[in-house]
Amino acid sequence: MPHIDFKNDLPGIRSALAYSPQTAEPLGALAEVLLRSDEGLSRAERELIATYVSYLNDCFYCHHSHGEIACIYLGGDREIVEQVRNDFATADVSEKLKGLLRVAGKVQQSGKAVTPEDIANAKTNGATDKDIHDTVLIAAAFCMFNRYVDGLATSAPKDMSSYPIRAKQVAERGYGSHIFSENQPT
Amino acid sequence: MPHIDFKNDLPGIRSALAYSPQTAEPLGALAEVLLRSDEGLSRAERELIATYVSYLNDCFYCHHSHGEIACIYLGGDREIVEQVRNDFATADVSEKLKGLLRVAGKVQQSGKAVTPEDIANAKTNGATDKDIHDTVLIAAAFCMFNRYVDGLATSAPKDMSSYPIRAKQVAERGYGSHIFSENQPT
Repeated sequence: MPHIDFKNDLPGIRSALAYSPQTAEPLGALAEVLLRSDEGLSRAERELIATYVSYLNDCFYCHHSHGEIACIYLGGDREIVEQVRNDFATADVSEKLKGLLRVAGKVQQSGKAVTPEDIANAKTNGATDKDIHDTVLIAAAFCMFNRYVDGLATSAPKDMSSYPIRAKQVAERGYGSHIFSENQPT
Repeated sequence: MPHIDFKNDLPGIRSALAYSPQTAEPLGALAEVLLRSDEGLSRAERELIATYVSYLNDCFYCHHSHGEIACIYLGGDREIVEQVRNDFATADVSEKLKGLLRVAGKVQQSGKAVTPEDIANAKTNGATDKDIHDTVLIAAAFCMFNRYVDGLATSAPKDMSSYPIRAKQVAERGYGSHIFSENQPT
């Protein structure tokens, strides 16, 4: 049961966003620019970083939601998403993304956990300064989103069929705050 | 030394915000609504929560920056800020704020660490649903800001006299993204 009365029955983060539209707006705008930019990292890479950090934070709603969105951008390849969750070092992704996932995993622990060696490794494998910037901020942002979702004890749908439906809507329409406040069941 | 070339010499989070104006805008808007809303929690209470979480995250730049801003809203009472950092349970603040700082400290660990007892305690001491919502989101947001600052190894001014100067600017003018990108030394 949620820790506060959201005055709506929306699932996951959407209940909190609909409860507080004034904070939903910048949060939606941040997700939009971080996860749907086509400059540098691909949308699939951005969503895989978000999925991985959410998985490390044990945020059921977020890692399933963003895993399904990543899956769409990967042409339906759910196996890669599973590999990244379980052991990115052996996943079928680029060495550059592996280097960035290593950085993201450190950010999940603490900003101070990121070492010059982590950064050098990512750069050696082709990551630019902008890729590293975006990776650190995506990982940091999901340390916020995951805490927002679980710190208020929002409800996560147990019916797993709802996640791909919602993912398709987000992939098509983005993270603008309008999408969170619509009273849709999924 | 910063992990990436920010192409500017600004301190702390401002170097990262100036490097990436497209993400600075929603981040500034989020800080503005979370820390300068006058609905429910006071600005001093909001900044004390931000300071406490930043202190727990060992983010030197953030806990000193926001500690100084809290100090301004408290009429210059630096002692209360120190008390909240060191042991909020014995600090000269309301029981309501103590209850909310307990929630914020749990959010800093993990969203899942917040218990129904933490929430009940805050409510018993006068916290509303909106107070709890805002506390959880402020704490979660500083788990992001702190990781952004330290995950990129931004530089924190060692000259402590610069923090009160900057704090005065923020208290007067807010967190709009314009303020971050201005090329000012403090």
